[in-house]
Amino acid sequence: MAASSERILVINPNSTQAVTDGIDRAMEPLRMPGGPEIECVTLKEGPPGIETQAHVESVVAPISAAVKSRDNDCSAFVIACYSDPGLHAAREITTKPVLGIAECGILAAMTLGQRFGVISILKKSIPRHLRYVGQMGVADRMAGDRAIGLGVVELADETRTFSRMAEVAAELRDHDGADVLIMGCAGMARYRDRLQRHVGLPVVEPSQAAVSMAIGRSRLHW
Amino acid sequence: MAASSERILVINPNSTQAVTDGIDRAMEPLRMPGGPEIECVTLKEGPPGIETQAHVESVVAPISAAVKSRDNDCSAFVIACYSDPGLHAAREITTKPVLGIAECGILAAMTLGQRFGVISILKKSIPRHLRYVGQMGVADRMAGDRAIGLGVVELADETRTFSRMAEVAAELRDHDGADVLIMGCAGMARYRDRLQRHVGLPVVEPSQAAVSMAIGRSRLHW
Amino acid sequence: MAASSERILVINPNSTQAVTDGIDRAMEPLRMPGGPEIECVTLKEGPPGIETQAHVESVVAPISAAVKSRDNDCSAFVIACYSDPGLHAAREITTKPVLGIAECGILAAMTLGQRFGVISILKKSIPRHLRYVGQMGVADRMAGDRAIGLGVVELADETRTFSRMAEVAAELRDHDGADVLIMGCAGMARYRDRLQRHVGLPVVEPSQAAVSMAIGRSRLHW
Amino acid sequence: MAASSERILVINPNSTQAVTDGIDRAMEPLRMPGGPEIECVTLKEGPPGIETQAHVESVVAPISAAVKSRDNDCSAFVIACYSDPGLHAAREITTKPVLGIAECGILAAMTLGQRFGVISILKKSIPRHLRYVGQMGVADRMAGDRAIGLGVVELADETRTFSRMAEVAAELRDHDGADVLIMGCAGMARYRDRLQRHVGLPVVEPSQAAVSMAIGRSRLHW
Amino acid sequence: MAASSERILVINPNSTQAVTDGIDRAMEPLRMPGGPEIECVTLKEGPPGIETQAHVESVVAPISAAVKSRDNDCSAFVIACYSDPGLHAAREITTKPVLGIAECGILAAMTLGQRFGVISILKKSIPRHLRYVGQMGVADRMAGDRAIGLGVVELADETRTFSRMAEVAAELRDHDGADVLIMGCAGMARYRDRLQRHVGLPVVEPSQAAVSMAIGRSRLHW
Amino acid sequence: MAASSERILVINPNSTQAVTDGIDRAMEPLRMPGGPEIECVTLKEGPPGIETQAHVESVVAPISAAVKSRDNDCSAFVIACYSDPGLHAAREITTKPVLGIAECGILAAMTLGQRFGVISILKKSIPRHLRYVGQMGVADRMAGDRAIGLGVVELADETRTFSRMAEVAAELRDHDGADVLIMGCAGMARYRDRLQRHVGLPVVEPSQAAVSMAIGRSRLHW
Repeated sequence: MAASSERILVINPNSTQAVTDGIDRAMEPLRMPGGPEIECVTLKEGPPGIETQAHVESVVAPISAAVKSRDNDCSAFVIACYSDPGLHAAREITTKPVLGIAECGILAAMTLGQRFGVISILKKSIPRHLRYVGQMGVADRMAGDRAIGLGVVELADETRTFSRMAEVAAELRDHDGADVLIMGCAGMARYRDRLQRHVGLPVVEPSQAAVSMAIGRSRLHW
Repeated sequence: MAASSERILVINPNSTQAVTDGIDRAMEPLRMPGGPEIECVTLKEGPPGIETQAHVESVVAPISAAVKSRDNDCSAFVIACYSDPGLHAAREITTKPVLGIAECGILAAMTLGQRFGVISILKKSIPRHLRYVGQMGVADRMAGDRAIGLGVVELADETRTFSRMAEVAAELRDHDGADVLIMGCAGMARYRDRLQRHVGLPVVEPSQAAVSMAIGRSRLHW
Repeated sequence: MAASSERILVINPNSTQAVTDGIDRAMEPLRMPGGPEIECVTLKEGPPGIETQAHVESVVAPISAAVKSRDNDCSAFVIACYSDPGLHAAREITTKPVLGIAECGILAAMTLGQRFGVISILKKSIPRHLRYVGQMGVADRMAGDRAIGLGVVELADETRTFSRMAEVAAELRDHDGADVLIMGCAGMARYRDRLQRHVGLPVVEPSQAAVSMAIGRSRLHW
Repeated sequence: MAASSERILVINPNSTQAVTDGIDRAMEPLRMPGGPEIECVTLKEGPPGIETQAHVESVVAPISAAVKSRDNDCSAFVIACYSDPGLHAAREITTKPVLGIAECGILAAMTLGQRFGVISILKKSIPRHLRYVGQMGVADRMAGDRAIGLGVVELADETRTFSRMAEVAAELRDHDGADVLIMGCAGMARYRDRLQRHVGLPVVEPSQAAVSMAIGRSRLHW
Repeated sequence: MAASSERILVINPNSTQAVTDGIDRAMEPLRMPGGPEIECVTLKEGPPGIETQAHVESVVAPISAAVKSRDNDCSAFVIACYSDPGLHAAREITTKPVLGIAECGILAAMTLGQRFGVISILKKSIPRHLRYVGQMGVADRMAGDRAIGLGVVELADETRTFSRMAEVAAELRDHDGADVLIMGCAGMARYRDRLQRHVGLPVVEPSQAAVSMAIGRSRLHW
Repeated sequence: MAASSERILVINPNSTQAVTDGIDRAMEPLRMPGGPEIECVTLKEGPPGIETQAHVESVVAPISAAVKSRDNDCSAFVIACYSDPGLHAAREITTKPVLGIAECGILAAMTLGQRFGVISILKKSIPRHLRYVGQMGVADRMAGDRAIGLGVVELADETRTFSRMAEVAAELRDHDGADVLIMGCAGMARYRDRLQRHVGLPVVEPSQAAVSMAIGRSRLHW
């Protein structure tokens, strides 16, 4: 396969274009001449944000359809929502690599510290995250999962958002013993550098972690 | 709430009425004059059998819809497929108890032995089952999961089906060290007694396990 | 077996009749016309409360004797002490189901949340509880175990008891991340509803959880 | 404290003097001038062998009584049955160290290999052993537990007993991946050296492991 | 940072140039015109092969020295031995990413199946691998680790080597339940495609897995 | 073997003679007229303190050399640093028992409580300790690991050192739920008794724990 035919499709399962745009900007360092193209798309069928189990479930079929429809011209897929919706369903559809950002965020964090903390947006997502950590078999590596607890409107306030992230990061570090942090959402890469400096721990941006893994897997065809 | 208003809705997520009928017959001992009614329904939107992750995902929305539409006249819900499709989504929809047969089959087995073995229908379901056991946090209690490997047509041959179940049960007992077995499917209750006698270990029929738990939870309203 | 011959014997291993009475009242919703009778008995050989490992051990033989003596006219047994004393010994004596309230309380909680917290009476019981959670293989599902730390006399003061329960419940929720709570004792069902409303998490009353499971198992004869 | 006042009481909870004698002979290398005396006693109230949960439970009170009655003239206690009956009850009675041979056999094995295999006498003891391994929180270190399956009369045939031990040891090594073995019973130290040479893996004799730990703890008074 | 300044240093800690050459060839698909250079070096201080714990320890200091000496002109480091020698020491030396092939092979496998099997060269390495899997906290995801048991001379016979790999792969699949395999050594990438086709499971080549992760991390500077 | 030929070599891998002297004094209760000699030596090649992974690695070869050079006149070896440097390498060199103080401190704590807390000197050592606890497979038994955070100069101030130990011990007890504590360093035995009285929990001095185990193993020759 010529390099030019490689393309990683990053699917943002929520319908908020601004989130896709944020992911797209976060991909910039991962775009290399001669490397796979990285295309970020918005799942128009998705809800504005993935906040409930119902939201998670609602995007599985559209994600599968997107993978199917792009299987011919893509060499790898990334599902860019921290609940990894439809990951195993998509893996049935294509023989190409399919990676989830929660999965890859956690795996990357495991190379950066011994106990990871997760910065979630909403408290009600935490049991879902915990079920996933159990499914991955890595519960002993998790220090904690805490929510910033901001709604969509509040998230538009970047100062407030960063301030809450920093607070939660410090709690994960000081109270739960985390030595590496994972941003438990997509589209917030713009805060990563500042947060890492602020809290003094490595911070994993999960979309970048997933696409990083997808580049190699796209090249290797396994 | 008067007893007469209690009703457990058992949802068979596949569209095979014969499976629903098998579940329904298995409910007989659990029907008590003053106890909850137990109604078994077939999800007409479901595939003939739940064999893939895509099948699992495809029934989530119809199950949620069924729960929603019957929330007014039911006091508890049971999802009668060993992959527990849509369990957590359904729990968001109703405040009534929602139980899955995989979950309850495993929990019941934990009161009958120290290491459970699962008799699955298809080998390709095993990784999905393992993910679920991990999510439940009970991997240390599992001895193994083995498939009888029969397709739909072959399952109609009861002699052959029982024979394979007995073989797999013996492997789980002798090779994997299981001291209790779980039937990893719905609608096979008719084999339970014979299998238990044959293999000499307790055998859990998961639909019965789930509805058993649902009766009490329906009565207690928690 | 005619329904009239079904009877669940709930054994309160401490000798305090008021505890048995509390358990008995908690059984009311689980008594159904046509369902198993639920008989609650006080183990007269027991100590006033099960507070130490010695207490636990001291009731094993009397519990086994009680099971043996009632094996002819009972169809299931429940050991109603949160240390599940003599559970495995009793299971050797009878082929009928024998369930413990700690075991069943924990299993029920696993269907209501991802991480359970236990409200214990005495701090010195916590290591014993932790050993049991390890034995059950569900340590990854436990958020924490905290004691209200009240003695027998203080427990008679219901206002104070509830107040301490509520404090401990809030600590389990806020500090340990529990999303479901278990009352780590028998005979306190009267506080359940209020505590659940107060703390905003599901609260499992373990005697009810165990008898709920026993009803189905009694009916199914496995 | 003068060395002459130190004494480790090794309690054989079964009533078979020959087992006590076997334990006593195994203590010979651990008796040192100036070190603690090591006294092995037979629990006359015990059954001839500890084979069931009922047997385990039946010796708890007599063991506690023995510990209490000898607390004045002993500096440490060892419970010499591979089910560690009454271990936690005994620890409530005395401030002196109390150690169990299953516990210490396992802990010693953890310094000799990465995955231990247990050679049990009876198959029906294995679930009890597994519960204990779970309680100890070391399930990930266990390769397997297999029984030689010989009754009391057959155990008197040393040739046959060793032959079965060797077979089971080889299965644990080759099938389960054990790299260290534990003799899952007391009173069989005479086979240890030969078995270790035969199977080519370190073999832990648990009574020796426990008394070894007790010597130091007796000297240190913690 | 210009792409030209990025360079991943892959350190083969054994002194066998043929192994380094094999790794180097395996890197071919991961070399992209605008991506990081990938330079494979042989640790001349290393033993011909890393077969014992002593070998592992002996290369830690030279690896650290290599990382230190190349910290100025490299943007990421990969330690290409399946024991990940000196991984944590190297991470103290540089702020650049340092990845181990065992670690990354396992993490990659966790995206390709639920239970991984490891094909080791020598049986005596298995306890070391198991310790590492425990350290990573992923023991529940491991199906097994089996050795082909060939020495250096025999490994030169490619037919025999592949034949043994295929046998071990089949045992891991059929006996241990692995659904993804990891080659537990560096420098054997030439067998990967054929082995994957032969065994019908995904096969992870760990050097490729590690360098894949290193590419992204090099680009992202975290 | 005559008692006079038994000798346990306790190797302090740091070069600070005062630490060795502290260990040596802690051995006093374990010296018995007819028991093994206990000789404590300072590894002159070691750093003044083992504070980093590089320090850990740097002492592996000298420890192995020390074991090799003394293999003829010693019957057991103890590595007296809470990171157990070179433990598995040393076990390859000699057929005599080799024990580490972290390992044995943890194993001893497992007989004294259900959840151990570790009092570390430096915060940066905690991830290394956690990796080791994972490798040992006992993460479920750990309550927490907290550092006193004092440097070498500050450690010379015994009042301040004890004060910080007492604070950390109370946090481990009250915040993390530890019911037994381990001193996460060698050479501090002089604080043990006072700390145990102060905090009201058993406190394990790990050098004593390791040598205790070594005495028996030396006598038993396994």
